[in-house]
Amino acid sequence: MPINTAASTSVDVPRGLAGVVVTDTALGDVRGREGFYHYRQYSAVELAQTRGFEDVWYLMVHGGLPDAAQRSAFAARTAELRRLPDDVRAVLPAVAAASGRSGPLSGLRTALSLLGAAKRFRPVYDIDADRRREDTIVATAAVPTLLTALYRLGRGLDPVEPREDLPHAANYLYMLTGSEPDPARARAVEQYLISTIDHGFNASTFTARVIASTGADVAAALTGAVGALSGPLHGGAPSRALDTLDAIGTPDRIDSWIRERVLAGDRIMGFGHPVYRTEDPRSRMLRGIAERFGGPLVDFAIEVERHVEAILAELKPGRELHTNVEFYAGVVMELCGLPREMFTPTFATARVVGWSANILEQAEDSKIIRPAARYVGPVPPVAVPEMS
Amino acid sequence: MPINTAASTSVDVPRGLAGVVVTDTALGDVRGREGFYHYRQYSAVELAQTRGFEDVWYLMVHGGLPDAAQRSAFAARTAELRRLPDDVRAVLPAVAAASGRSGPLSGLRTALSLLGAAKRFRPVYDIDADRRREDTIVATAAVPTLLTALYRLGRGLDPVEPREDLPHAANYLYMLTGSEPDPARARAVEQYLISTIDHGFNASTFTARVIASTGADVAAALTGAVGALSGPLHGGAPSRALDTLDAIGTPDRIDSWIRERVLAGDRIMGFGHPVYRTEDPRSRMLRGIAERFGGPLVDFAIEVERHVEAILAELKPGRELHTNVEFYAGVVMELCGLPREMFTPTFATARVVGWSANILEQAEDSKIIRPAARYVGPVPPVAVPEMS
Repeated sequence: MPINTAASTSVDVPRGLAGVVVTDTALGDVRGREGFYHYRQYSAVELAQTRGFEDVWYLMVHGGLPDAAQRSAFAARTAELRRLPDDVRAVLPAVAAASGRSGPLSGLRTALSLLGAAKRFRPVYDIDADRRREDTIVATAAVPTLLTALYRLGRGLDPVEPREDLPHAANYLYMLTGSEPDPARARAVEQYLISTIDHGFNASTFTARVIASTGADVAAALTGAVGALSGPLHGGAPSRALDTLDAIGTPDRIDSWIRERVLAGDRIMGFGHPVYRTEDPRSRMLRGIAERFGGPLVDFAIEVERHVEAILAELKPGRELHTNVEFYAGVVMELCGLPREMFTPTFATARVVGWSANILEQAEDSKIIRPAARYVGPVPPVAVPEMS
Repeated sequence: MPINTAASTSVDVPRGLAGVVVTDTALGDVRGREGFYHYRQYSAVELAQTRGFEDVWYLMVHGGLPDAAQRSAFAARTAELRRLPDDVRAVLPAVAAASGRSGPLSGLRTALSLLGAAKRFRPVYDIDADRRREDTIVATAAVPTLLTALYRLGRGLDPVEPREDLPHAANYLYMLTGSEPDPARARAVEQYLISTIDHGFNASTFTARVIASTGADVAAALTGAVGALSGPLHGGAPSRALDTLDAIGTPDRIDSWIRERVLAGDRIMGFGHPVYRTEDPRSRMLRGIAERFGGPLVDFAIEVERHVEAILAELKPGRELHTNVEFYAGVVMELCGLPREMFTPTFATARVVGWSANILEQAEDSKIIRPAARYVGPVPPVAVPEMS
């Protein structure tokens, strides 16, 4: 009987690679028991409370926070890169038309791939660290322009040209709606974006690193990451948590609705996280932002949260189930006027910074990520039968 | 000092996940010590010697070889799917223009993403196994049409419409050149394609599975895989082996050229494989195909192979370095009239079947692939400094 070489040198690990350490990173981490996560050496929540999006973007791709001169040069450069190359812009109506119902995220996958080609991105191992960083900045700066153009084209509206005088987050809202957002909404969206730039080693981040590890260009890695994010098990949920609020409808229905679901064993969208064993720090921050706005939706969300936690504590004691990032993210995005189909794309607008930093870190390594599989089918070789 | 939760439950594995078993598979395996690889229970080389491309494609996505009725239905269905939807075809000139020098593989990445959107591919966990398989077949059938159209458009030529009366491989050559290939060349390319459909758990295959594991659609997974394949450490080499033959130039220069490179510690393109410790079975088969054609290039390649093996045995005894798939693949593709920039895209034309089968297998699981990273930067939280 033949010996399976691969199996004889193989390492067995948990399913889905859970807990398997693929790489060292200086980009950040999540401490689930403490309810704490960080970007480089800084609390992510503190960054969201004290800095603008561009500062944290700079931190992630340059390794440190910018000083005043660096901030202004980075802001000017990234603002200029919001404008799309003509050959990409020309194709967007066709991409939007073809993408149709599959929405802006599938259009972004196509458009980012095209942008990388049009901008002559080159294999990451063939260029130096500065050029690689520049490629990630070119892509990241263009994401809001691509997404808002695809969204508007899909609704028969003309894209809104980017403005260079607005910060990244405010310009995103401006391009989406065509009018300048009020400062409170712009800042709320900016804080949401900062808080979702990175979060441990998720599936899209890992995808970006695997692709970059082959030496492929930045667009290849980002396109793969967008694809992974589009999976319902990964980036698909922020609007579903809001759908839960809609389904409950009114405060008097909360108790019966939730009990029914929990007793039926259904998952309550917006609650529970695979890593956090205490309150999700993003959720706490986003609830604070929602409370700044106030109003019936916020009151209702807080009421639902209170009931769900009480009912889960009663029916599933010891489980420590809290709201996750999706719950109040949905509320905040709704308050800021973002349409629900743009919730996950908005997440992508932030996460592309995390992917970028991970691609840059991976490209400093030169080792391809190439695991193994164990063959479990019928023992070969079975003779190929005569053709029938 | 804060406890790092992730680290306390983490599993350490070799760099690049080498030898780490990510999944069970019934799709095939590589036995490096024996110089043997298989698709399901059949020798891949035997399949290439006895079957057509469509039969092996069917085997990979359906799980068994087709009978006569299944063969003819599958051939008819896949031939019909070669024709692109109008909205995708309309965008290709712009994609080719934007992609420019980055070539057909980067264009394929964009075009496959668009095709999936245009064909309304849906998240793999939201559809049944038949629909998932159909999505992979839609994409795979279109790859030669997309690639040849992008190639021709990039040279100012009109795309050649697919013919439904030719087999997959012959039609690929036909669309590339505009004239029907002679049967020997069509069969040689078909055998090359069959022999590269799958080969263990490589980086692009793994990428496709990670993306599929999030529940993303088939186009998301294939687009990521194309991106990984475009990396020079993965799919980038078949034309470089041929460049080596060009650089040597004439038989009298073989010995000095090779010795110089080996003594300088340079890698000789087309030699050596991370898994095979004996002759690469694909190389052996492709040499046989090349010998069917004969001629000065084949004689020269065989002469170079003989010299390199002798010199390596002398200078690096015990290393067992043989030609890998790239060496004679390049020779065969050159003999069949494929331009060098189409070598890796041709590889993609075959490997998309392997990716497809892996996506379908992964989609039967419902567990996201999400490993971990170890944070090694400065200990957080460091207070965020005042803005300067």
